[in-house]
Amino acid sequence: MTVDPAAASCPVPRTDSSHIRLGHGSGGQLMAELLGEVITPGLLPPGPMEDAAVLPDPGGDLALSTDAFVVTPRFFPGGDIGMLAVHGTVNDLAMRGAVPIALAVSYVLEEGLPMAELRRINDSVAKAAADCGVAVVTGDTKVVNRGACDGIYITTTGVGRIAPAAAVSAANAAVGDAVLVSGPIGSHGTAILSVREGLGFEAAITSDTRPLHELVAAMLAAGGAGVHVLRDPTRGGLASALIEVAQASQVGIEITEAAVPVPTPVTAACELLGLDVWHVANEGCLIALVAPEAADAVLAAMRTCPEAEHASLIGRVTAGPSGRVTARTPLGTARVVDMLIGEQLPRIC
Amino acid sequence: MTVDPAAASCPVPRTDSSHIRLGHGSGGQLMAELLGEVITPGLLPPGPMEDAAVLPDPGGDLALSTDAFVVTPRFFPGGDIGMLAVHGTVNDLAMRGAVPIALAVSYVLEEGLPMAELRRINDSVAKAAADCGVAVVTGDTKVVNRGACDGIYITTTGVGRIAPAAAVSAANAAVGDAVLVSGPIGSHGTAILSVREGLGFEAAITSDTRPLHELVAAMLAAGGAGVHVLRDPTRGGLASALIEVAQASQVGIEITEAAVPVPTPVTAACELLGLDVWHVANEGCLIALVAPEAADAVLAAMRTCPEAEHASLIGRVTAGPSGRVTARTPLGTARVVDMLIGEQLPRIC
Repeated sequence: MTVDPAAASCPVPRTDSSHIRLGHGSGGQLMAELLGEVITPGLLPPGPMEDAAVLPDPGGDLALSTDAFVVTPRFFPGGDIGMLAVHGTVNDLAMRGAVPIALAVSYVLEEGLPMAELRRINDSVAKAAADCGVAVVTGDTKVVNRGACDGIYITTTGVGRIAPAAAVSAANAAVGDAVLVSGPIGSHGTAILSVREGLGFEAAITSDTRPLHELVAAMLAAGGAGVHVLRDPTRGGLASALIEVAQASQVGIEITEAAVPVPTPVTAACELLGLDVWHVANEGCLIALVAPEAADAVLAAMRTCPEAEHASLIGRVTAGPSGRVTARTPLGTARVVDMLIGEQLPRIC
Repeated sequence: MTVDPAAASCPVPRTDSSHIRLGHGSGGQLMAELLGEVITPGLLPPGPMEDAAVLPDPGGDLALSTDAFVVTPRFFPGGDIGMLAVHGTVNDLAMRGAVPIALAVSYVLEEGLPMAELRRINDSVAKAAADCGVAVVTGDTKVVNRGACDGIYITTTGVGRIAPAAAVSAANAAVGDAVLVSGPIGSHGTAILSVREGLGFEAAITSDTRPLHELVAAMLAAGGAGVHVLRDPTRGGLASALIEVAQASQVGIEITEAAVPVPTPVTAACELLGLDVWHVANEGCLIALVAPEAADAVLAAMRTCPEAEHASLIGRVTAGPSGRVTARTPLGTARVVDMLIGEQLPRIC
């Protein structure tokens, strides 16, 4: 505040606009400049900055999902943290049969983050949202001191409109359901690990990060209420996703190990690193548990979509033991599939 | 994964459940235990863990708001980061005339965070949400390595139903509007600074963090469409809130300095610290710009609410200069009110 009215018209010296400073999170003029010059252009609709965005009556049931993204490194083969933050939330909505109608994006920035990196990530958020046909309608930006965050963390929250035909829940699996997977597993986690550890796989393995809501729409159009469960096997991988579904639905699941598609470079990387590919995170595939009479139609519909041209039937739902997932090995033996117990790959998403 | 089916029934050794470990964010069994034993009880509705929550058709226009909370310290006089994260988002919804109907809560946790602190903060989130009459319907938990976060950051996102009578926007101020404030300013920022810096004010000054949606409902009931603008002066304080409204509505605002309520201990603390109380963050008061014919009724309604018993008329909207806020001093002179330029109090919310 100044006592001299004339001083109000003096331009504020911008001592350093190349890196994030604590003042960019203060709620004052530096923050207004950051929002006006870097963050909102291209990301948020023009208009006054409001405390909350207004969404016109969506006229139906909604899905709501939130996820924090803390992946390291921020840029990786096949994507970056901004794109991942959009795809991850769009996909979580899709797993309830919902099409995204609005996104909220919250940044925590570290003092010293290069402004060029923020611009690149922010552009990536904006592009990914546009590609998914969803608007970012509101956001928030906080700045923390050096060493109190690793560059940038992003929390995206999505609101989706649930398709009228959809009745999808992790608890809806029924005995006899076909277990489908939309594509090869293991790419995201091995791509991150490769670049993080300098292992040199990055030419051969890129993250599968991509939106799945259009695939889900095609599946619901083909299978309707026969689509019982949708799940994207992110953290914890295929194993955790299947076990969570088996537990929530109180059924058993039997998977034919050889039917699970794994790219050859991913298999090689996992063998080298001692990783179980069923525990490795994915960001662009889903599993679906579908009533047997609808399974052929759903699988055919999936294969017409570019994101699921290698969709496969990998197993069946059994009466029990409740909560147990069993894998049939190529030798014909059965093994119980366990969740990852400790930690394998921190900060994978 | 194990080759021996019998091994699946062995209990997992819990080597240390007193602090957060990286494995708590892995998507595997440790994470399932953290969610099942610490985070979801009391916070989330019982039922299967889903990728997204379902909200039944809300039947009207919605408000959506998101905020990251990075306040330090995590516990402060009058509140904590969990309570603040709920109040902040509930209040941002209220500033569009909306009542909260669902919250999404996302945690970023630092490896090594004492589990007891997480329990305490999580309980505080649950209690604050219950006190506000809103359900936490979905969430996310990530864990980052030591030194990559300061204990815990929380992003809360709220969905609210907008009251049919409400047409509230920062752009709606009109010449002649009364400028009202719901209560004394400056308590939150000075309380945080006192405890952070060990200044010893904490007995005299506590944060004003509290929900404002019931106050807003009373104001809308009394003033209807005459309530033009609502704003909670958080980061950047009263000065930034007024300037943002003046800019968005392309009007001038004239404030009578002596009419702005400031608690005596806050005045003393700000003088000692060289802070301008108009730049200090608040978490439990609002400003309202109200049509002159509705102002008396709105002010009277505010004073019936315990959170606004000291509500005051502090100024008027003028034709211009557009975007300028002027303060009339006790000496009868006028000064231009400026936004905070650099940073005054990082990590205040």
